Amino acid sequence: MMHYPEAVEALIAALKQLPGIGRRGAERLALSLLEWEPEKLEFLGRLLGTLPETVGSCPVCGALADAGELCMVCGRPDRDGGTVCVVETMAQMFAIESSGNFRGRYHVLGGRISPMDAENGAGLNLPKLLERARSGEVREVILALSSDVEGRATAIYIAELLKGAPVRVTQPALGLPAGANLSYADGATITAALTGRTEVK
Amino acid sequence: MMHYPEAVEALIAALKQLPGIGRRGAERLALSLLEWEPEKLEFLGRLLGTLPETVGSCPVCGALADAGELCMVCGRPDRDGGTVCVVETMAQMFAIESSGNFRGRYHVLGGRISPMDAENGAGLNLPKLLERARSGEVREVILALSSDVEGRATAIYIAELLKGAPVRVTQPALGLPAGANLSYADGATITAALTGRTEVK
Repeated sequence: MMHYPEAVEALIAALKQLPGIGRRGAERLALSLLEWEPEKLEFLGRLLGTLPETVGSCPVCGALADAGELCMVCGRPDRDGGTVCVVETMAQMFAIESSGNFRGRYHVLGGRISPMDAENGAGLNLPKLLERARSGEVREVILALSSDVEGRATAIYIAELLKGAPVRVTQPALGLPAGANLSYADGATITAALTGRTEVK
Repeated sequence: MMHYPEAVEALIAALKQLPGIGRRGAERLALSLLEWEPEKLEFLGRLLGTLPETVGSCPVCGALADAGELCMVCGRPDRDGGTVCVVETMAQMFAIESSGNFRGRYHVLGGRISPMDAENGAGLNLPKLLERARSGEVREVILALSSDVEGRATAIYIAELLKGAPVRVTQPALGLPAGANLSYADGATITAALTGRTEVK
C-alpha cells in the first residue's frame, strides 16, 4: 500500500483529529497546506505552538481571553455586572453577543451535566459562579442553557446550587422562533409557546 | 462587535484559507484546537513550520517525496520504468495505486492546461516528461488525465509534445464503470462504451 511522505502522513493523522475531518478531508487539507508559502506555514505553525501561552480564560467568567487578561466583555466598564448570563460554550456567548441587545455579562461553564454522570458538575466552571452570585454584585443569573435533557439537568442543578444566594435565577423564554411558521414547529415548542402566551398589544 | 482573542482570530483567519473551510468551520476547528494538549499543538505547529524542508517532490516524476529523495514508487526497483502513467495530481496517483494493479511508474504534472490560457503548459512538470520520453527507457506513456475539456486539451497538448519521442502514447479506456447500471450512465459514457465495445469471451 502506497503512502505519503512521513511528514505528510503525520500531518494527515493530526488533522484527522479535528471535528468533522475524516481521512479524505485531512488528505485534502494536507495537500492544500503543502502549497502554502513557507512563511505562511511557519506563521500558522508558530500560532498553534504558542496557543497555550497566548490564549487563556477570563479569570472572572471563564470565556476565552488573551492570557492573563479579562475577556472582551468583562474588560468593558459599560457592561452591567448585575446581570450574568450562564452559557455552556463560547459559541453560545457569541450567538448572544451578535444578537446585539444583551448588556450584561457572561459566565461560561465549559460544558454541561450529563444526568447519567456520577460526577455532577465536576470540571465545570461552577465554584466561580457561586462566588459571583454570593458577592452581592449580581442581581440576576440567566441560565441560557440548551433546552435538551442535559441542558435542563444542568439548569436545575445550578438553580439548586444558587439557592440562598441573593440573586434571581431566570431562563430565556421558550416559544416560537421569530419569523417561524407554526406548522414547522415541534410539539414541545408549540406547547411552550401556547403555555407562555402573552397579550396582543 | 465581539471578537475572539487576537491569537484565536489569527488562527481562524489562517484556517479559513483551507479548501472547503468557511468562517464557521474555521471557528469550530480553532475552538477544538484550543482544547488540544500543549504538546500536541506544538507537534502540529512544528510539523507545519518544517513542511517546506521535510517534504519535496520526486526528482524523477514530481510526486510528493521526502525532501531530496525519490518518491514511494520511483524508489522501488520492482516497478516497471518502461511504462509511465501521466496524472494531474497526487490524488489521482493514489487512486491508481490503490486499484493495486498498475506496476509502472508515474509522472505528476501538477495541474493541467486550460484551453483559455495563453501560457500553454507553463508551470506544469512537462520538460521532465519530455526528457523521460526521449531517454529510451520508456516504451509507453499513458495519459491518465481527466476526461473533461481541460483534461482532454492537456492530453492533446502532451501527445503533440511527445511526437518524435520513441514512445507509444495511450489513454485509459472510456466506458461504463464496473458494476454500473447502464440506465444511470450519461450519453457520452454510453457512446464511448458502445464505440469501444469488445468481444464477449
